[in-house]
Amino acid sequence: MSDAFSSAARLRAMLDVEVAFADAAAVAGVIPAASAVAVRDAATADPPVADIETQALAAGNLAIPLVEWLTARVAASAPEAADHVHYGLTSQDVLDTALVLQVRRAARELDATLDHAAAHTARLARLHASTPMAGRTWLQHATPTTFGLKSAGWLDALERARLRLGASVAEASVVQVGGASGTLAALGEAGPDVADALAAGLGLLAPVIPWHTARDRVAGVACALGIACGTIAKIAGDIVLLAQSEVGEVTESATGGRGRSSSMPHKRNPVAAVRALAAAAQTPGLVATMLAAMPQAHERAAGGWQAEWDTMPALMARTIAAATALAESLDGLDVHVDRVRANLGRDGGVASAEGLVTLLAPLVGRLDAQRLAKGAADRAGASGMSLAEAAAGSPDIVAVTDAAAIARALDPQTLTATCPRLVEAVLTTWRR
Amino acid sequence: MSDAFSSAARLRAMLDVEVAFADAAAVAGVIPAASAVAVRDAATADPPVADIETQALAAGNLAIPLVEWLTARVAASAPEAADHVHYGLTSQDVLDTALVLQVRRAARELDATLDHAAAHTARLARLHASTPMAGRTWLQHATPTTFGLKSAGWLDALERARLRLGASVAEASVVQVGGASGTLAALGEAGPDVADALAAGLGLLAPVIPWHTARDRVAGVACALGIACGTIAKIAGDIVLLAQSEVGEVTESATGGRGRSSSMPHKRNPVAAVRALAAAAQTPGLVATMLAAMPQAHERAAGGWQAEWDTMPALMARTIAAATALAESLDGLDVHVDRVRANLGRDGGVASAEGLVTLLAPLVGRLDAQRLAKGAADRAGASGMSLAEAAAGSPDIVAVTDAAAIARALDPQTLTATCPRLVEAVLTTWRR
Amino acid sequence: MSDAFSSAARLRAMLDVEVAFADAAAVAGVIPAASAVAVRDAATADPPVADIETQALAAGNLAIPLVEWLTARVAASAPEAADHVHYGLTSQDVLDTALVLQVRRAARELDATLDHAAAHTARLARLHASTPMAGRTWLQHATPTTFGLKSAGWLDALERARLRLGASVAEASVVQVGGASGTLAALGEAGPDVADALAAGLGLLAPVIPWHTARDRVAGVACALGIACGTIAKIAGDIVLLAQSEVGEVTESATGGRGRSSSMPHKRNPVAAVRALAAAAQTPGLVATMLAAMPQAHERAAGGWQAEWDTMPALMARTIAAATALAESLDGLDVHVDRVRANLGRDGGVASAEGLVTLLAPLVGRLDAQRLAKGAADRAGASGMSLAEAAAGSPDIVAVTDAAAIARALDPQTLTATCPRLVEAVLTTWRR
Amino acid sequence: MSDAFSSAARLRAMLDVEVAFADAAAVAGVIPAASAVAVRDAATADPPVADIETQALAAGNLAIPLVEWLTARVAASAPEAADHVHYGLTSQDVLDTALVLQVRRAARELDATLDHAAAHTARLARLHASTPMAGRTWLQHATPTTFGLKSAGWLDALERARLRLGASVAEASVVQVGGASGTLAALGEAGPDVADALAAGLGLLAPVIPWHTARDRVAGVACALGIACGTIAKIAGDIVLLAQSEVGEVTESATGGRGRSSSMPHKRNPVAAVRALAAAAQTPGLVATMLAAMPQAHERAAGGWQAEWDTMPALMARTIAAATALAESLDGLDVHVDRVRANLGRDGGVASAEGLVTLLAPLVGRLDAQRLAKGAADRAGASGMSLAEAAAGSPDIVAVTDAAAIARALDPQTLTATCPRLVEAVLTTWRR
Repeated sequence: MSDAFSSAARLRAMLDVEVAFADAAAVAGVIPAASAVAVRDAATADPPVADIETQALAAGNLAIPLVEWLTARVAASAPEAADHVHYGLTSQDVLDTALVLQVRRAARELDATLDHAAAHTARLARLHASTPMAGRTWLQHATPTTFGLKSAGWLDALERARLRLGASVAEASVVQVGGASGTLAALGEAGPDVADALAAGLGLLAPVIPWHTARDRVAGVACALGIACGTIAKIAGDIVLLAQSEVGEVTESATGGRGRSSSMPHKRNPVAAVRALAAAAQTPGLVATMLAAMPQAHERAAGGWQAEWDTMPALMARTIAAATALAESLDGLDVHVDRVRANLGRDGGVASAEGLVTLLAPLVGRLDAQRLAKGAADRAGASGMSLAEAAAGSPDIVAVTDAAAIARALDPQTLTATCPRLVEAVLTTWRR
Repeated sequence: MSDAFSSAARLRAMLDVEVAFADAAAVAGVIPAASAVAVRDAATADPPVADIETQALAAGNLAIPLVEWLTARVAASAPEAADHVHYGLTSQDVLDTALVLQVRRAARELDATLDHAAAHTARLARLHASTPMAGRTWLQHATPTTFGLKSAGWLDALERARLRLGASVAEASVVQVGGASGTLAALGEAGPDVADALAAGLGLLAPVIPWHTARDRVAGVACALGIACGTIAKIAGDIVLLAQSEVGEVTESATGGRGRSSSMPHKRNPVAAVRALAAAAQTPGLVATMLAAMPQAHERAAGGWQAEWDTMPALMARTIAAATALAESLDGLDVHVDRVRANLGRDGGVASAEGLVTLLAPLVGRLDAQRLAKGAADRAGASGMSLAEAAAGSPDIVAVTDAAAIARALDPQTLTATCPRLVEAVLTTWRR
Repeated sequence: MSDAFSSAARLRAMLDVEVAFADAAAVAGVIPAASAVAVRDAATADPPVADIETQALAAGNLAIPLVEWLTARVAASAPEAADHVHYGLTSQDVLDTALVLQVRRAARELDATLDHAAAHTARLARLHASTPMAGRTWLQHATPTTFGLKSAGWLDALERARLRLGASVAEASVVQVGGASGTLAALGEAGPDVADALAAGLGLLAPVIPWHTARDRVAGVACALGIACGTIAKIAGDIVLLAQSEVGEVTESATGGRGRSSSMPHKRNPVAAVRALAAAAQTPGLVATMLAAMPQAHERAAGGWQAEWDTMPALMARTIAAATALAESLDGLDVHVDRVRANLGRDGGVASAEGLVTLLAPLVGRLDAQRLAKGAADRAGASGMSLAEAAAGSPDIVAVTDAAAIARALDPQTLTATCPRLVEAVLTTWRR
Repeated sequence: MSDAFSSAARLRAMLDVEVAFADAAAVAGVIPAASAVAVRDAATADPPVADIETQALAAGNLAIPLVEWLTARVAASAPEAADHVHYGLTSQDVLDTALVLQVRRAARELDATLDHAAAHTARLARLHASTPMAGRTWLQHATPTTFGLKSAGWLDALERARLRLGASVAEASVVQVGGASGTLAALGEAGPDVADALAAGLGLLAPVIPWHTARDRVAGVACALGIACGTIAKIAGDIVLLAQSEVGEVTESATGGRGRSSSMPHKRNPVAAVRALAAAAQTPGLVATMLAAMPQAHERAAGGWQAEWDTMPALMARTIAAATALAESLDGLDVHVDRVRANLGRDGGVASAEGLVTLLAPLVGRLDAQRLAKGAADRAGASGMSLAEAAAGSPDIVAVTDAAAIARALDPQTLTATCPRLVEAVLTTWRR
């Protein structure tokens, strides 16, 4: 659970809202300035978390018992201010604005973690921009790519995840002030001014109108978290696949005994990547819950809003856990270049067969080129020859080209000549 | 969170498995009896929960650090037994068998709670078997039913939820003993005997073969929980709808200040039913996570199994919370029979219009009967007359029948004459 | 199913991509201009949909048989151009770029439909800006709002749905050109130029690098659709609740026999709103599928990408169906102002009790004010008096105020005085 | 889409219900026998599918226009019977009973397909019961298993999927007869008899009471489908992983050009397994939709039930597609025993290292045994020696044992000696 969403942090965020609201109401002349001071003083204490959570079961939400606790504290020190606690607010005003504060705090932590992960992928992208490796489609060798281009793809998507997250949090950074039915009635004429002052005080935006049952901006954050997890899991999944015993192109750092087995001395499990996968795998269902909770009745929900209270913290926590685990997996990830090269060369280097087609197509037509290349690939696979040797041994092929051209066409470096430029483009975008 | 799934309870269940396994291994002659005693003694202490959870991040699962802790304790008191701790087991054997124990414990609590809720619905069904109320389809008045038949429908579904849950837990009550790859290799010839003895010791079943990556029985429990929540939410949703200000047919007990508002003195919110809805609303997404986690690679998952660790406890906790809240809502639910009757009679009692069609259909044909009934209903709606009066004022209708017959046909008691028998059938099934 | 995602439209979009790609390749000098013309000519014919779908089962995707069909057509008319069909592309390049085209087309239809729905809510907002109605929280009467403010909340959220959808489609409007492993290798040096030219030709963006397994932008569209459905369902749900027999504040237009029942002559079901709810209810699960499909292995997925093929069309179709049904429900929605007023006045107008608290709080303190107001509300509820009468009959209350002040304080018009300004703010934003 | 759930098949199933219901009503004396004959005759024609689907949009469901069409046909041939069409039924009675019929039909097809898949796994289990292969946990080599035991695990889970599916369909095979509000009122005293006769006529069960808004049995079928897909995807996922270029232990049959690539002549993609994965991946979200749709208001839903109409067919279709693709993948699956053996032996056969621990543990204690085995495994990995050689070269190890014992302990056949018995147990259960 991210600290921003702990039980204590949630109540603290709610108190922050009550304090800022009292200030705003005082500025607008709705309550005396002295009352705002009294609220601020009273709110410095830590509320009894367990008690308030228990009372919330019967009350229906956390705000009711928390406001009672706060009011009692104010009444004890400044009786004339007690009536000004939570004045004109409804429970949801406090809970929603506090949610926004918590989301913003947690999102900062998440952003920093994603940035660490991104920096690791950028390092790999730069280092291996020209390291040919097998491209794999359908988990089968396709044509060569480079480890750097793969890493650049990870980086590119991580950066979009950060941007999307930032945009969604910015869009949702809107105070909730509406009173019981969202009319601002209890604040009278001063309502909009109080809302503006509260927004200014908390560094948030003021909405055009209260949004108690318009949950789209909260859902937008949920979706950005879910999409970020999809990207995290894509990268973690690639790591796990590359770390397979038969592939062996990467291993996670074993620092601190990570990935050991209780019964198998040779094991070095990619535990951080798997932890990222496990955390991320829980998020599509949580996003679906947030979306399914959106249809909230009339001026306040009977179920949907309340379903958000556990779901949003869980979703944020899983996303932070996934990002943290990914950054840990990438940090110190060993790339075994020899295995990368060996895998690319397996089966005579058939992964480069497209190069042969490209060479032959202008000479004999594409369909014949494909036929000739397939023949050579089959012979290479069956005989242990390299594809270049098999091709050079084909009378039909050498009738139109020669061994040197074949070798060039099948050279992984040639076939991945475009990759460094693509990597550079991503790195440039990243650092702009 | 259900207590059965607290962090401490999870480690305790795992220790229960280690102890029972050592006993089973001793019975089968795989380890000395004295070693099993040493394991049992060592496991009486409470493990350091936070430490073990921290170590599990690097180790990949809770079993590795817990077994290390247990082994150290055994080694301190009976060094020769240290090698026999967790002998021949793999982490997943312990975690999965412990999961089964936890599920069984939590399911007992859930079953009792559902039974309480069911008993309340049975009471309502019996009491109101003959209390006519408006049947509502598409949230529009349809034809009359009785409050008892509605309650009997709740009861019938709750009972199926209990049966389904019990069956799924029974099916999943299977020990996991397979060793690293599920071959029972480390236990040699004794493997199946040890598995049988462990199952007997824990009151569980022994599987035909280890089931590390065959998660269907666990998913079956998850689905039974999800379905139970669907039924709970159906009932809670009906309560919330019936409690609406304009409907007013039920109110939850206000014991303990339940449902009060901080700013609106007249409010009496159905907080327990809403809490049930909010908890239940989170379960379809959690079930989807469990299903999506089922495709677990080879002999042990890289992500899917690990995703279950948070999801199954959350799912059980939400289901217990939903059931508890529903039982609380039903306990002391006030049924306002006067409002039930008044609502049924609204708009001249048009909800009974089908009775008029049934009366007229044999006399003038169904299509004409519908036309005549619609005419009468429209006049009743427009004029403030009752439907019976409007019908009796229709020359076309009185040409084929008379006011007494009309009154009988529209009498809600007549129209719900079948209901008590249906209620009785459900109650009989329930108590069989 | 939206027409943009019919089987035929999908193949047509793919052909559009092949044609535009051939043009781009010709511009870049990769293939002869005459070949591009031949491709364009051949692609004017309609491909055999069922045949191609059947062949796709074995081939693994639609592009392989479609390209074979297209190549055969080109070969028949311009044999020398056959080798230039789909030159340098991979199946996913075609399928993904076609997806983007289809999404863009469907999104236009969706946008127009949402705009219609929004215009209807704007009309209601303007018309009823000052029509007091019961605000409802937890489905209980809370404090007064106006029908216009409720409608303005709908409008505000619908407009954000349109903006979010537009932004997500714009972000996803990126061509896919990468070849087998996303390296652009087969196009050699010309790769980026071809991608740029293709993007220009189709009015799309060119990506920094190919994005075969970086699905976040597609997932972003899916999420925007899911959020739009959440907003649609919120509105449709309000309509269904307001249309309940006991509430009766709105009815859908009965044009064309809509909402009739086969057996109940009096029924007028809100079928369009329910259709919107049913369509929208299917989308959270579809969004979850899109998110869960994001972790796509290496350079092309083995399952995740393929899972998108049915899911994205279904998601778009459900969203368009939901939006269409909502617009239909709102079009001609009858607002029964008399029922709106009567409901607000029920139980002596206790929904206005907050006004009494606001009046009394400065005079006797908030806690006493709440106590006095609750007493008056209880007496009004029990006796049939209005709340104003009950309050005026309270010695404690009239000791500090008088009947005229009470009447003003409880006047719904007073209590909703802020609403027209809020409505106006939304309307202004809408038309900016 | 399974044929059982095509648009035409749905209407046909609904007509089957109307016909069987008329028969039942005639048997119970509710309508004349001649009317039942007239209904049967009229229902032999095929209804205009597109027209009825269009009318259903305004009517709210398919039953209303279909009954009108049927009534018109009856009226044309036997006017006196027109009033007896759909007599006493409500739309949902017809739609739900038809759903049950469709589910039963589709489930038969699914069962047969799963049976084919199971038979293929049984063949592999029998054939390879003693073929050692690398067990893989976390996608890393663990200890040896056999290909037969892996296949037996697949078989065991497939059989449970079939049993679970059969049980859920049997439980859901319940007619729906309740009339508008589920009271059976329109059928009077004869109601239960008609329901029983209808159940008998269709080979279904009669429920204790109508179940319009008690959807748990339908949800039970949905869950069984979702769980079956989880099992299917587990197997298909294993196949895709085993088919990876670097693993190469299986390939799908290339019959009919399956798995070819448009640009890479050497590719042989596991297209059937991937198709199974893609279909199965869509089901958790669909199951979640079914569960989320369960809370259906009062006597008939306003949204939830209607959401089932597209979801259940899609869920069944995806499950059948997944099962069909899996059976196709398994049919003719080539197992490359040489690659299986070679992979197991890689890195000196470290996958067998647990055998060394088992050998040494009784001699030097488990902790020392693990230390010694890890040392040998590391040396084997670094040097190219086999693990047996490395172990035999360790002074500490040969001090307590000898090379022959080491070789026996590391022999995969020894380490998998338990497997054939486990395989046999599964096969025996399967064929019981």
